[in-house]
Amino acid sequence: MNSLFYAVPCASLVALLFAFIFYRQMKKQDEGTPTMRQIAQYVREGAMAYLKQQYKVVVIVFAIMAVFFAILAYVFHVQNPWVPFAFLTGGFFSGLAGFIGMKTATFASGRTANAARRSLNAGLKVAFRSGAVMGLTVVGLGLLDIALWYILLNAFIVEATEAQKLVVITTTMLTFGMGASTQALFARVGGGIYTKAADVGADIVGKVESDLPEDDPRNPATIADNVGDNVGDVAGMGADLYESYCGSILSTMALGASAFYMAGPEMQTKAILAPMLIAAVGVVLSVVSIFTVRTKEGAGMAQLLKSMSFGTNLAAILSGVATFGILALVFGTGNNDWWHFSCSVVSGLIAGVVIGKATEYYTSHSYKPTQKLAEASKTGPATVIINGVGLGMISTAIPVIAIVVAIVLAYLFAIGFDVQNMMTATNLSKGLYGVAIAAVGMLSTLGITLATDAYGPIADNAGGNAQMSELEPEVRERTDVLDALGNTTAATGKGFAIGSAALTALALLASYIEEIKIALERAGAMVSGVAGQVKAAEASILDILNNYNVSLMNPTVLAGVFIGSMMAFLFCGLTMNAVGRAASKMVVEVRRQFREIKGILTGEGTPDYKRCVEISTKAAQHEMLGPSLLAIIVPVVVGLVLGVAGVLGLLIGGLGAGFVLAVFMSNSGGAWDNAKKFVEEGHFGGKNSDCHHATVVGDTVGDPFKDTSGPSLNILIKLMSMVSIVMAGLTASFHLL
Amino acid sequence: MNSLFYAVPCASLVALLFAFIFYRQMKKQDEGTPTMRQIAQYVREGAMAYLKQQYKVVVIVFAIMAVFFAILAYVFHVQNPWVPFAFLTGGFFSGLAGFIGMKTATFASGRTANAARRSLNAGLKVAFRSGAVMGLTVVGLGLLDIALWYILLNAFIVEATEAQKLVVITTTMLTFGMGASTQALFARVGGGIYTKAADVGADIVGKVESDLPEDDPRNPATIADNVGDNVGDVAGMGADLYESYCGSILSTMALGASAFYMAGPEMQTKAILAPMLIAAVGVVLSVVSIFTVRTKEGAGMAQLLKSMSFGTNLAAILSGVATFGILALVFGTGNNDWWHFSCSVVSGLIAGVVIGKATEYYTSHSYKPTQKLAEASKTGPATVIINGVGLGMISTAIPVIAIVVAIVLAYLFAIGFDVQNMMTATNLSKGLYGVAIAAVGMLSTLGITLATDAYGPIADNAGGNAQMSELEPEVRERTDVLDALGNTTAATGKGFAIGSAALTALALLASYIEEIKIALERAGAMVSGVAGQVKAAEASILDILNNYNVSLMNPTVLAGVFIGSMMAFLFCGLTMNAVGRAASKMVVEVRRQFREIKGILTGEGTPDYKRCVEISTKAAQHEMLGPSLLAIIVPVVVGLVLGVAGVLGLLIGGLGAGFVLAVFMSNSGGAWDNAKKFVEEGHFGGKNSDCHHATVVGDTVGDPFKDTSGPSLNILIKLMSMVSIVMAGLTASFHLL
Repeated sequence: MNSLFYAVPCASLVALLFAFIFYRQMKKQDEGTPTMRQIAQYVREGAMAYLKQQYKVVVIVFAIMAVFFAILAYVFHVQNPWVPFAFLTGGFFSGLAGFIGMKTATFASGRTANAARRSLNAGLKVAFRSGAVMGLTVVGLGLLDIALWYILLNAFIVEATEAQKLVVITTTMLTFGMGASTQALFARVGGGIYTKAADVGADIVGKVESDLPEDDPRNPATIADNVGDNVGDVAGMGADLYESYCGSILSTMALGASAFYMAGPEMQTKAILAPMLIAAVGVVLSVVSIFTVRTKEGAGMAQLLKSMSFGTNLAAILSGVATFGILALVFGTGNNDWWHFSCSVVSGLIAGVVIGKATEYYTSHSYKPTQKLAEASKTGPATVIINGVGLGMISTAIPVIAIVVAIVLAYLFAIGFDVQNMMTATNLSKGLYGVAIAAVGMLSTLGITLATDAYGPIADNAGGNAQMSELEPEVRERTDVLDALGNTTAATGKGFAIGSAALTALALLASYIEEIKIALERAGAMVSGVAGQVKAAEASILDILNNYNVSLMNPTVLAGVFIGSMMAFLFCGLTMNAVGRAASKMVVEVRRQFREIKGILTGEGTPDYKRCVEISTKAAQHEMLGPSLLAIIVPVVVGLVLGVAGVLGLLIGGLGAGFVLAVFMSNSGGAWDNAKKFVEEGHFGGKNSDCHHATVVGDTVGDPFKDTSGPSLNILIKLMSMVSIVMAGLTASFHLL
Repeated sequence: MNSLFYAVPCASLVALLFAFIFYRQMKKQDEGTPTMRQIAQYVREGAMAYLKQQYKVVVIVFAIMAVFFAILAYVFHVQNPWVPFAFLTGGFFSGLAGFIGMKTATFASGRTANAARRSLNAGLKVAFRSGAVMGLTVVGLGLLDIALWYILLNAFIVEATEAQKLVVITTTMLTFGMGASTQALFARVGGGIYTKAADVGADIVGKVESDLPEDDPRNPATIADNVGDNVGDVAGMGADLYESYCGSILSTMALGASAFYMAGPEMQTKAILAPMLIAAVGVVLSVVSIFTVRTKEGAGMAQLLKSMSFGTNLAAILSGVATFGILALVFGTGNNDWWHFSCSVVSGLIAGVVIGKATEYYTSHSYKPTQKLAEASKTGPATVIINGVGLGMISTAIPVIAIVVAIVLAYLFAIGFDVQNMMTATNLSKGLYGVAIAAVGMLSTLGITLATDAYGPIADNAGGNAQMSELEPEVRERTDVLDALGNTTAATGKGFAIGSAALTALALLASYIEEIKIALERAGAMVSGVAGQVKAAEASILDILNNYNVSLMNPTVLAGVFIGSMMAFLFCGLTMNAVGRAASKMVVEVRRQFREIKGILTGEGTPDYKRCVEISTKAAQHEMLGPSLLAIIVPVVVGLVLGVAGVLGLLIGGLGAGFVLAVFMSNSGGAWDNAKKFVEEGHFGGKNSDCHHATVVGDTVGDPFKDTSGPSLNILIKLMSMVSIVMAGLTASFHLL
């Protein structure tokens, strides 16, 4: 094993070490008054109860699936024998990352509120460093899982040649991504439903019907709402990005091993190491940048945003520069590969920044689009919805162009702009490797970007705690500043999550073809390649595509594209409806409490918070299964009926429509949220005006858009690829058409 | 020329003759009281004024484009010299069909109201027969244009071989579809914006703010609203389906000529005749079936629906049966082609019926989904929107599965279920011909299906007229029954329009590749085919795909897919926002009139209807240009930058996402509309309850969903293909990547 590799487990340990340090620092902070402790305790209990419930369901699903994979592997021999284990560890680490992140967040929010009593800077520091625990845990556990499997498989897998062995190792590792994907889906969907059922329910009865402010302790759904922020926005998002992070690294490794198969094991090893090392260095740069985020007392929103942006931009720029160094070290400077691939990485980084900025432009009320959306409230809720949908749809243009340019440039850089021979077998592999490594570049600084993202719900919860504990108004004002900042970073983070998911999914698409090749190889099959029959082991991506007639005019491909596009919508629709149903239950319950428990609205009676937490928990459990299983089953069925060409169509259709739909839903939701905030700041009549009520309707509709359905799509597009990859053996050996 | 061909112009004349007869019959009816005449006159004037304005803009755009095509053809020689003329006639006939349909509709609605004073049956007869004028005009003019060009080009085009000549004739004719598409886009988008600006504006101020009933004469926007039904739902939809109708026939002809190129001109001629004859016989069957639609006095909604369903189902079944006869006649019964292709046609017919039924299930308040949506109003407008979006997204599943099954079956039938050799060059051409002819089957009975569709707005306007003329309440009740029926048939018609658009677009996709081949041929180029270099003239579809590396993993294809998906959303977003903006202007104006013109609300003052008509007209003109030009320009730019592979990706991405998005938007909109009606019928508190207000918000949001953005997508996906086809010469001779 190349000695550079050991940087990877080391970086992983560095990340986990700092996560632990930040965690300890946070725990040492005072949690405040008895009321504050009490409320934090409620939220913590609710969150843990939910997670326990969710993991119970997930464990059952995982057990069934692992047994299924084991049967495929050991009875029917159409599956790699390591898959059941890889699948389980992927799920385990993903769940662990979510658990740690959430545990931290629920300890941190009360402490953030308490620190905010001292000063804004103190509040920021607690919240942000706690967010960093999440960020660093995700990347630390991700790299740890990757490093462990790499060592393990290197020791155990035996193949005829070293080149072969590297291909088998990397494609095997890829399948642990499926475990991570599956667990991420449940976390995102379940968490998303939970949080929005509570939020929508609390808003409708509390804000719209009873004119209570946000987080008012008289609102029975308010604890559930705060729990929701933790299980949805912290645990759910952590699992999502854990999966993107690992997925991008793993698929780049797999593509590297196959792209340079002919060049021999030395070059393969370099190509395998490159993504791991870029990620490893990114971890260290993230830690460094986290320390730069601080602000002076008396700083406003602009100052705070600048401080955070400085941190993330610093990490991104350093990471871009470092990539040139790393790749020069790995590939040597004897030929142009090092800077070609580095430029691919930079394409990905720039696309990430552009998508983030575009998201900010369309969703922040510092800019025209959201201000105009707020103005539409003058003509009532209907025009707010119409304009918000329009805004979200229009906002898809820039992210799509950014991704398209990044894909094409990453590909062209990787093949040294050899436009005349873009699609030779060698260049295709190399180009796709370039696209994959661009995704790694985009995610290399995840440690800090995820910190800015996880910070949001912590600040949000801190505000809730301050409100419910009836602290001095200036505390709530401070947490409001922190929270508003969190909204902006969350929007940027969402753009980032979607962009990286798209690039990762593309890399997985290429990996799928590799996996089909391995399956054919295992069966000793011949492939009818572009230039005639070849052995599967020697087949290029083009040969495999040719073998299955994966032409754009193949009806199975077209059928797949339609089904893929539909899947994105169907999945969204199911999750939207799930939120609608769950929120209705919550509304009914809150209304009941207002009616039956005397003196709630005057503050004399205590609402039954627990009942609301239970409703959300139960609804989320109940509702998450359907959409999740659909995402797992459809790719398998399409594979069995329409074959490899159909699956590729499915994945491409799902990726295209899913990406755009996700951007639309996230941005519409974000814009509605901030349009409401804009009105609340005093425009168009301010709080409690007709305009305000109209924007609250928009905000309520936007909740499941931006926090349930939209983000779940990221996982859907990756999971469908992962399922296809893991089931490649089955598809290759049996399909109807 | 084969003598069977003459059946085509004959059928066209039959259609136009009956259209004329029905028109005369309608005109003979009495238009009612002076007030009724007055109101009908207002609406007629407004509609004509709008159409005049619109055609002015369209003429300018057409002139510019025709000059551009002429330059490409005569200066740069990268364009077929007939294109500018074909383009212009396509646009002219499409506009003419819209004009006649709308003229009829505006004469018919007052007369329908008046007839409804006598009896329900009388009202139905006037409205439905007037709708039939539209249906028959569209198919009559469509077949006429096709027949004339076929005769003309047969006389003038000279090629080396007869086989070659047929290919050139049919691909040339295809380009008149672009004229039809372009005019259709303007009609749909402009009309859609017009109608919904007026409708939304009228609803927001009238229904929500002032509690006026629909079509109340005190509402200043009410005439504009009624004009909108005519320019959007009649003229816009007519142009849309004219385009689908011609597009499906033309692309099948083109595919027929190329699929059987090697089999020689005799077989080619058969394949060219088949779609024309299926359409011709469909026209006659439509006329026959139209006469079966009648009902007894005292009939309720169920009876009426049965009567209409009987007519359309009769036409569909007869058409399916007749197809076997026609194709046996054309292809002979010597081999299996006749029944193979007939089965393909039947697949298309069945898919059409399934999509229609699914649409009805999801949007009619006789079924659970819409009833549950209505129930969501108990928790306010936000949950109505959330559930409606969810419902629409879920409703995409069945139509997609129906289309996918139809595509795969039509293909497999056409190649005689030769699954082992699905993708040989011969089978691919034959299979795609099968898919194309399935679209023809779906649209063959357009004469009657469009009649049931155009009938809706006529009945709707009749209701408006009755209300504004303050006729006896039972008249309004009768027109309400007619109108409610119209909502159901409109929903079915929309499903039908979308389904046929998808199949047509697929056929156009295949035609695009043919067109590229012709362009290469004209340039005398060689093609690097699947099995080495071949002359362009002898290249198969697979060879052309191979020549341009149209692999699914080609980054330009992937880039195209992303851009195509994005286009669907961007286009929708732009039209949604256009409606939002235009509606806001309308709201401001109506509020102004309520404030400034004394006694409007007490019925003592007369509102300034004209001002509202002007606002809608101006806004529609102003707003339609942007999205329309985008749809024309983007395929050209993608072709120039990303080349043929990129264009194919664009078209497939646009088709997949566009189809699903269109179904979603239409069904959400339809369900919101009917959920409101369900509440109005007395459920959940009935009219003017909180639930009712919540559903009105849903209905208002649904208006642009179902009548502007959703239906415009049908045209977008076809137009992008058409533009690509027409620009194939340019793309083939120049592209960056």
